[in-house]
Amino acid sequence: MAWPNRDFLDLVGVDLPIIQAPMAGAGGAEMAIAAATAGGLGSLPCALLSVEKMRAEIGVFRQRTDQPLNLNFFCHEPPEPDPDREADWKDHLAGYYDELGLDRSATANAPNRAPFDDAMCQIVEDVRPEIVSFQFGLPATDLLQRVKATGAVVMGAATTVAEARWLENRGCDAIIAQGAEAGGHRGIFLGEDITTQPGTMALVPQVVDAVSVSVIAAGGIADGRGVAASLCLGAAAAQVGTAYLFTPESLISDLHRAALAAATDEETALTNLFSGRPARGLLNRLMREIGPMSYMAPDFPTAGGALAPLRAAAEAQGRADFTNLWAGQAAALGHELGAEELTRGLAEDAARQLTGILPKT
Amino acid sequence: MAWPNRDFLDLVGVDLPIIQAPMAGAGGAEMAIAAATAGGLGSLPCALLSVEKMRAEIGVFRQRTDQPLNLNFFCHEPPEPDPDREADWKDHLAGYYDELGLDRSATANAPNRAPFDDAMCQIVEDVRPEIVSFQFGLPATDLLQRVKATGAVVMGAATTVAEARWLENRGCDAIIAQGAEAGGHRGIFLGEDITTQPGTMALVPQVVDAVSVSVIAAGGIADGRGVAASLCLGAAAAQVGTAYLFTPESLISDLHRAALAAATDEETALTNLFSGRPARGLLNRLMREIGPMSYMAPDFPTAGGALAPLRAAAEAQGRADFTNLWAGQAAALGHELGAEELTRGLAEDAARQLTGILPKT
Repeated sequence: MAWPNRDFLDLVGVDLPIIQAPMAGAGGAEMAIAAATAGGLGSLPCALLSVEKMRAEIGVFRQRTDQPLNLNFFCHEPPEPDPDREADWKDHLAGYYDELGLDRSATANAPNRAPFDDAMCQIVEDVRPEIVSFQFGLPATDLLQRVKATGAVVMGAATTVAEARWLENRGCDAIIAQGAEAGGHRGIFLGEDITTQPGTMALVPQVVDAVSVSVIAAGGIADGRGVAASLCLGAAAAQVGTAYLFTPESLISDLHRAALAAATDEETALTNLFSGRPARGLLNRLMREIGPMSYMAPDFPTAGGALAPLRAAAEAQGRADFTNLWAGQAAALGHELGAEELTRGLAEDAARQLTGILPKT
Repeated sequence: MAWPNRDFLDLVGVDLPIIQAPMAGAGGAEMAIAAATAGGLGSLPCALLSVEKMRAEIGVFRQRTDQPLNLNFFCHEPPEPDPDREADWKDHLAGYYDELGLDRSATANAPNRAPFDDAMCQIVEDVRPEIVSFQFGLPATDLLQRVKATGAVVMGAATTVAEARWLENRGCDAIIAQGAEAGGHRGIFLGEDITTQPGTMALVPQVVDAVSVSVIAAGGIADGRGVAASLCLGAAAAQVGTAYLFTPESLISDLHRAALAAATDEETALTNLFSGRPARGLLNRLMREIGPMSYMAPDFPTAGGALAPLRAAAEAQGRADFTNLWAGQAAALGHELGAEELTRGLAEDAARQLTGILPKT
């Protein structure tokens, strides 16, 4: 099976127009190896990894496959500490602390989402991943130059045409057009208004028209039909996230897995409660009760701090009331399947779908 | 050019998998005739038409073409009059009345969006349109039975899988899956929460899997790429709206036309300010200043009443500050073109796009 649009496939060195989405906390070396072995682009999300863990995961990948590797980093600006705002946020959650019998002075470790820095850049220089991709814009010019000097293909995520142009102008070799359907954090970085964020069907062709580099479609793509549709929209490949959460290679909790298995099409919303940035997840008690978006949630990534004790206590009781259950709007299309088989099936089903609908002339 | 999936095409009797969307206030007989002449399905939106005007428009269509006709109706429940709420809404807008030097006791005619009733049903029984489509659910059982007794194909619009199942269970022969990208009123009728409404890429395949009737994709589809993508997702046809607003057959104002020509991908939002129901339009002054969604807006369709004097005064000054500028998220893909040429081009470009990306085996 030879895909006729080779630009992106040749650029990154893969056979299938499928990118296994980097999902911090959910994907590790095993998922990336499986996707790469099938002929897709395997991705390792690094934002939640220590430098040691990052080196270890990359080492496992390199031992097991000689396929290209996509390392993914966040590049947000860490916020100034704002103890008053964090205290207000905790006050806002006081009823939940009381209900669970927790001391509000209790602390718990929140996920430490670190931006791309000198230490991570040194790893890139050492291990020379074939692709480096960024979420929330791009790192500072000197860091970006160091990455590009390694010869890595650089990809950025855009949620609007303006963001896509911004990324292309700063040297991105390919752009992920992330439609509003996508699960997890929105890549939005030039604005804050999520009410105007376009869906994948509308966004992808507009980005394709606006930039000259390859465009990858993301958001709401969970089977071969979505992959075929992405290529029709002018994308060079499709990035698939939520469908990989159903694989045995996924590192998500049993609670998250059970929630995904029960998901319908209308049970996700964008929420900033868990991290301070809008991200799409399955509705849970916290989102329903205080609303999925709150101006009180402290800046990314600190909002999760006050939730951590609540989350731990509720999870110990088997409830995901305070847990971020990241998922895209096509979660209900997912089903349990190995990540290698999933990757291969996405491409094969896309080809079959295209063949079936082609008009006879 | 023969499209292989004939189920829907044969059901309604057209050659091309393109439906010209019924857009109340923007489309009349000329637009429907042009779309039908090209081989697509021409639609006549009836919600804003008097019974006399409706008969006249249908008469023009029948004189000029023997292609099938889709009559589209709203079937909302008219609200109980609520003078207090309407007064509060007008108070909320008081600053604008003052600014424009308008008396707040002034009245102006707001668009009268009437639900499907006995008089409209009699027209259906008289003129026997090949297709009757409904927005906001379906009419009462007796009215629906009378429509079905004419032999018309009945279509309904769904914004979720649950709505699609509801429509199929009540006898719809085909279902329009309206993704969040779509311009104008959302068809949502089983719920009210627009934050969980899925985009086209995610919604269409889930609806296709859930029902056994034909599914039509709508939302964010403005060129051949979107049509091809819709078919890949399993849709039997694509319904295109905003792209037809750019045609000379479109009845929109010059202000609306100018706003569309300047639109980008991130300049629409869902708003209930203009009618009381969420609808997607280009951001204007009112939406930016009081926010696109307001709990104060009276129930559909009365919210527009208090805006009518403001709208008229601002439009007389050449400003669309209080005008509903309906548009979908792919408005920027539209360009001036005759409706017949647009319809034909949508199908031809879709076929070309499919041929270009098909992998060689």
